[in-house]
Amino acid sequence: MKLEEKKISSKEVFDGKVINVTVDAVELPNGAEGVREIVHHRGAVCVLPLTDDGDVICVRQFRYAHGEVLLEIPAGKLEEGEHDHRAAALRELSEETGAECSELIYLGKLYPSPAIFTEVIHMYLARGLTFGETHPDDDEFLEIERIPLEKLKDMVMRGEIYDAKTQICVMRAYLEKGK
Amino acid sequence: MKLEEKKISSKEVFDGKVINVTVDAVELPNGAEGVREIVHHRGAVCVLPLTDDGDVICVRQFRYAHGEVLLEIPAGKLEEGEHDHRAAALRELSEETGAECSELIYLGKLYPSPAIFTEVIHMYLARGLTFGETHPDDDEFLEIERIPLEKLKDMVMRGEIYDAKTQICVMRAYLEKGK
Repeated sequence: MKLEEKKISSKEVFDGKVINVTVDAVELPNGAEGVREIVHHRGAVCVLPLTDDGDVICVRQFRYAHGEVLLEIPAGKLEEGEHDHRAAALRELSEETGAECSELIYLGKLYPSPAIFTEVIHMYLARGLTFGETHPDDDEFLEIERIPLEKLKDMVMRGEIYDAKTQICVMRAYLEKGK
Repeated sequence: MKLEEKKISSKEVFDGKVINVTVDAVELPNGAEGVREIVHHRGAVCVLPLTDDGDVICVRQFRYAHGEVLLEIPAGKLEEGEHDHRAAALRELSEETGAECSELIYLGKLYPSPAIFTEVIHMYLARGLTFGETHPDDDEFLEIERIPLEKLKDMVMRGEIYDAKTQICVMRAYLEKGK
């Protein structure tokens, strides 16, 4: 079965600082024409920082889109033109938690919402942590919280962690542990 | 530490069929003013259909935003004004896989990209499956594939599944099994 859709035309309807939005006319697999509203984003990284004691360094921050304080792992957008995801992961880890790590393990990527959103988040596990000062962005306000990985996994299983990247990395780190 | 941001003003910059976009001025926790670009979405559901033999009914579909065919679990947007997530989950399961289920277990919700995106996806596990005819939407082209849950979990661990909701539900279902 043919599944591909081909771009016929693309019109930019919003050009922002973090995202831009296009409305694209596409040729569907059956030859008919469809419309796709696409949010373009330059991508992001996230890091699960795991201490030698088995604690995860989490951050609580207010997410305006949901009107709630969320418990998440450290993360951040790539800078404009940035292609080095490892460097971005080390930067976000340091900015948000003040930590450096001796080991940074790539866990793969996630597509948050593939129907409309081009964002790709690259996931890392950081080990061998040492702690210094935090230095978050000017518009970033965070609280740091240490939570045992085992407890976080139980929180995910009870549906108490909403953020997708945090759910994924917690379960990945938990399941890796058994190896 | 105060973390909340308060809305000062909101300007709609795009009003589409699937999303609309606002640019909001907000008061940051330190009293300064910040800007938030927010993509509004009415929410979605996803379902991991698990057969008595331990297979997951997956769908492959082309995701124009990424230019790739992705392996995912069945999912779909809520209809306008729809608040019954269970009914939506049963509908998407039937439309995309032709299956009915005798048991539909709520797994909780996920926020795909909480920094900018209001979308909430409600997750379900479907058991006791019986199969009839599929009837996807007019602009939806899918291939159905049965994959053992154990194998899917290994694919997630190797970084071969990109879609966030699929990674989460596969690991949730796998970890639930041990109980």
